[in-house]
Amino acid sequence: MGEFDLIARYFTRPPVRALVGVGDDCALLQPRPGTQLAISSDMLVAGRHFFDDVNPEHLGHKALAVNLSDLAACGARPLAFTLALALPEVQEPWLAAFARGLWSLADAHGCELIGGDTTRGPLNICITVLGETEGQPLLRSAARPGDELYVSGTLGDARLALQALQGQQALPPELLAQARQRLEQPTPRVALGLALRGIAHAAIDLSDGLRGDLGHVLKASGVGAVVEAEAAAGLLAAARHPGWRGGASAALEAVLAGGDDYELAFTAPPAAREAVLQAARQTHTPLTRIGRIEAEPGLRVLDAQGRPLPLQATSFDHFKSP
Amino acid sequence: MGEFDLIARYFTRPPVRALVGVGDDCALLQPRPGTQLAISSDMLVAGRHFFDDVNPEHLGHKALAVNLSDLAACGARPLAFTLALALPEVQEPWLAAFARGLWSLADAHGCELIGGDTTRGPLNICITVLGETEGQPLLRSAARPGDELYVSGTLGDARLALQALQGQQALPPELLAQARQRLEQPTPRVALGLALRGIAHAAIDLSDGLRGDLGHVLKASGVGAVVEAEAAAGLLAAARHPGWRGGASAALEAVLAGGDDYELAFTAPPAAREAVLQAARQTHTPLTRIGRIEAEPGLRVLDAQGRPLPLQATSFDHFKSP
Repeated sequence: MGEFDLIARYFTRPPVRALVGVGDDCALLQPRPGTQLAISSDMLVAGRHFFDDVNPEHLGHKALAVNLSDLAACGARPLAFTLALALPEVQEPWLAAFARGLWSLADAHGCELIGGDTTRGPLNICITVLGETEGQPLLRSAARPGDELYVSGTLGDARLALQALQGQQALPPELLAQARQRLEQPTPRVALGLALRGIAHAAIDLSDGLRGDLGHVLKASGVGAVVEAEAAAGLLAAARHPGWRGGASAALEAVLAGGDDYELAFTAPPAAREAVLQAARQTHTPLTRIGRIEAEPGLRVLDAQGRPLPLQATSFDHFKSP
Repeated sequence: MGEFDLIARYFTRPPVRALVGVGDDCALLQPRPGTQLAISSDMLVAGRHFFDDVNPEHLGHKALAVNLSDLAACGARPLAFTLALALPEVQEPWLAAFARGLWSLADAHGCELIGGDTTRGPLNICITVLGETEGQPLLRSAARPGDELYVSGTLGDARLALQALQGQQALPPELLAQARQRLEQPTPRVALGLALRGIAHAAIDLSDGLRGDLGHVLKASGVGAVVEAEAAAGLLAAARHPGWRGGASAALEAVLAGGDDYELAFTAPPAAREAVLQAARQTHTPLTRIGRIEAEPGLRVLDAQGRPLPLQATSFDHFKSP
């Protein structure tokens, strides 16, 4: 099967909103008047972001999910994406499954594939996603002292699954299965991001771990934060399972170091608390308030008695050893 | 050097037209009213699209040039791009040179870097470029019987350089140097593409070879074409050099099979000939008329006496062996 047959069979559908989709030099989109365009690119590399033997349907889902998560963090509505794919060889069952996972999530969000590139090479998936925002987008730089700090869904389970699959940590099979789903099939919080427009101040999607990603918000906003250890530790889904033997401090560490969570962390003023909870209910998104923003720079994690806990300074960085 | 230092040092500048640039979950652009957005993604893989020891400044140029060439083929004005980069390791001199080549071309076209991704992995560069068009864009599907067929610049020299560097072909040093520049530092024909709006019918950028890429235009437009062998063979710059020993038929084959040319092929009605030449003069772009579009499907190459020449059916395909 050649390059153009491959594109035609797995990655071409008639354009929906796009004026021109797959199959010309460029795709063409007509943005709606008054909207801004939100753009994000993410690259996933075999052996780095996923195991070589990962279920290709899950991989197709995840490759788009991590990009949609960036749109969610800006409060942008998904419009379209391009897919650039380097493949060591053409294996049709693999491609069919990958495409199935990709289209399924794309359809769920009305996000159309409008172009891209295919080439031979070490397995690499680069997606660029385009969305539209109206009014004030959610930015990393908008956190204000006094804001409350929220996190959607659960955190740390993806990292737990990764460690178990790498043999660094033993997990009961049931717990591993649950955590592995978080690693391989994250849920981009697009609906929540949209519902938070005009309510939340700052937002970020959690891909490198809460500690590091929250650090980006604090730095961009010129503020600090206090996180309550008990609330944060409770974000690890695995810790709620009777098979969990790690205790609270391991749970807290998994949550803070995390990575691959693709949940939203965001801040909102106390007066907006009811509106925030309403946005979460409307979009069926679990939400936890874990702390607050303060003027004093830095991140402080407090125990139940309000005493600061020592913090390791680690967060995921592709060019530093963990 | 960590991931975020690397981005800050080499790939961050204040936004120009973008509302938000590098450093948030998404970049934000405000398209001008009445314009359409043109989008294209290209992925370059080490050992496939370039040699591992290629001059990194040339590579930075080329990675963006191949994307700008897609905008040129649509008659779109460059606005912005994202860069996703997988690196086996952080080598600062390499990165500094890569960034220099990239910024130099980006600045020449007023195309700003608005976001992207960096990760560790086999060297891979994926750029998504965004441009704006007004009115009728140039499309592959717009060729009409009776149109004349034009090609910008020169064709086939990049392929010649590739073959010489792979040891498949001997070239005198001067010829190799000249051809190698075409391979490593192609010139995207952005100004010509813009000048051809409202004049040309169909256009395509030549990346996989004239024969194959012209085939896409013919198929999308439901037409055929006649190419004059003598005019086409003259497109090989190397053939004009006294050191060239390949003769006319080797020149023709290099032009037709080509690849990595990043010139424009386009069609325009005979009545527009003066306007086409004016667009070429205005933009200082060499232009050659090489044939015409006909209703009868297929590509026919004719010798000086109007007799059809036999054609091999090859064009570059990443998943077929040449």
